[in-house]
Amino acid sequence: MIPKSHPRYESLMKREKIIEGFKKGIVAYAGLIAHGRGETFDYLIGERSEDFALEAEEAAVAKMLLAKNAVISVNGNVTALAAKEVIELADSVGAKIEVNLFYRSEDRIRKIVEEFKTLGKDILGANPDAIIPNLEHSRALCTKEGIYSADVVLVPLEDGDRTKALRDMGKFVITIDLNPLSRTAQTAHITIVDELTRAVKNMIKMAQNMNIDEARNILKWYDNHAILAKSLEHINRRLENLSRQLQSSSGLKT
Amino acid sequence: MIPKSHPRYESLMKREKIIEGFKKGIVAYAGLIAHGRGETFDYLIGERSEDFALEAEEAAVAKMLLAKNAVISVNGNVTALAAKEVIELADSVGAKIEVNLFYRSEDRIRKIVEEFKTLGKDILGANPDAIIPNLEHSRALCTKEGIYSADVVLVPLEDGDRTKALRDMGKFVITIDLNPLSRTAQTAHITIVDELTRAVKNMIKMAQNMNIDEARNILKWYDNHAILAKSLEHINRRLENLSRQLQSSSGLKT
Repeated sequence: MIPKSHPRYESLMKREKIIEGFKKGIVAYAGLIAHGRGETFDYLIGERSEDFALEAEEAAVAKMLLAKNAVISVNGNVTALAAKEVIELADSVGAKIEVNLFYRSEDRIRKIVEEFKTLGKDILGANPDAIIPNLEHSRALCTKEGIYSADVVLVPLEDGDRTKALRDMGKFVITIDLNPLSRTAQTAHITIVDELTRAVKNMIKMAQNMNIDEARNILKWYDNHAILAKSLEHINRRLENLSRQLQSSSGLKT
Repeated sequence: MIPKSHPRYESLMKREKIIEGFKKGIVAYAGLIAHGRGETFDYLIGERSEDFALEAEEAAVAKMLLAKNAVISVNGNVTALAAKEVIELADSVGAKIEVNLFYRSEDRIRKIVEEFKTLGKDILGANPDAIIPNLEHSRALCTKEGIYSADVVLVPLEDGDRTKALRDMGKFVITIDLNPLSRTAQTAHITIVDELTRAVKNMIKMAQNMNIDEARNILKWYDNHAILAKSLEHINRRLENLSRQLQSSSGLKT
C-alpha cells in the first residue's frame, strides 16, 4: 500500500493501474513500455497541468461540445488508467466511446468492452463495419455509427499513423500526448500535452461550466502551433533549471 | 520480423528482448515500465553513444581493470538485454557477476542464474551470506565473495538507494543510466549516460586495447561532474534543435 503522502503517490498509483490492467488482459506488453515512456515526459513536464495543457483542454472541450458526432477512441492503457473519467467526459460533452487497438486482439477488445459495461457504459468497436482508408487492416477497423461518421475524434495516447489517417478523412482530431515531439502531437488539430487522467478530469470540470457561445469564442483564438511551441519551451526550461540546481548543489567528483 | 533497415530497428529489437525476458520470468512488471522510461531518454539523447558516454565508459573500464575485486551487479532487465555482452565484459576486465533484484523473488533469481549458466557463466547472488547496511532487507542481500568485498561495483540500470548504500560502504560505484538527473546518476562516481547494450559493447572493445598505464592516466583526468553537465547540455541542445526543426517545418494550425 503506497501512502498518499508519498511525493510520487499519483505516479505510482497510475503504474499500479497499468499493471493491474495488464494482469486483466486489457493492456498489451507494448502498453506497459509505452506507459514508461510517458512517465519520463511527465517527469520532465513536472507532473502537473501547465497553461499550455489547460488551454488545449479548454479548446478540446469546446470543439467536442460543438461537434455533431464526437467520438472518444479508447485503447487498453486509456481503459486501465481512466475508464471511469472517460465515461464522465463522454457524458458531459455528449460523445460516444469506441475501442480501437494498435495490436488488435478480439480477446482484448471484448475485455475492454466488458470493463466499460461494468462501469455502466456501452461502447462501440466490438463489431466494426467500416474501414479507415490508408491504414493497416486490423487498425483500420471502426464502426459507421462511431469513428467512421464522426466529425470530431479524441484519440488519447494514440499512434501517429492513425491520427494522420483520421485527419486525411477530414476529421478534426484531438489528442492527449505527453510527448510534444511525437508524430501524433504534431499531426493533431488540438494537442493536449498532459497526463491522461489529469487532462480528462480537467476537461470534465470545463465541460460542466461552458456554454455554446463561450465554446465558439475559445476556438476562435486557439492556436495549436503556439501550444506545441510553449510546451517545448517549458520542457527546455525545466531541464535547464534541473541541470542548474544539480550543478550547484552537488559537488561530487571521483 | 522487423527488417534491419527499419530506422528504429535497434530500439524495437531491445523492446522485443525485454518482452521476451518478461515472458521467461526474468523481467518484472516494473522492469517493462522502466524500459519505457529509458526509451524516452535514449530518444532525447539521439540513440547513439555521445562523447560524454564514451569518456565515462573509458574511465569505467580503467577503474575495473585496476580494481582488486570488481563486480558487475545484474538485474532482470540487464539479463534480458545484454547477458552475453556482460559476460564478455566481465571476462575482459576480470570482474565477477552477481545478481541483485529490486523486487527480489527466489524464482527470478534462479531464472537469471540459469540464463547465465546457459551462456556458460556461473554468477553469484543465489546464496547471499552478507548484508549491505542501511538498505531494506531483501535488496540488501549480497555475497561476501562478490559485492560485499568488492572495491569497484558496476551497477547498470540501478536504483538510487542502493547506489548510495554501496558508496557509503566505501565502494567505488559505476553506473549506466540514461537519465543524467536520476539519483543513481548523481550519486555514482562514474556515470555512463548511454544505453546499456551500446555502453557494454563499447567497453568490451576499450578493455581489449587498454594497458595499466593508460588506465591510470585516464582516471587522473576523469571528472564525473563535468560528464553529467555535458550530458544535460546535450539533451537540452537536442530538444532545442528538435523544437526549432518542428517549428519551421510544420505549419499546422487548427
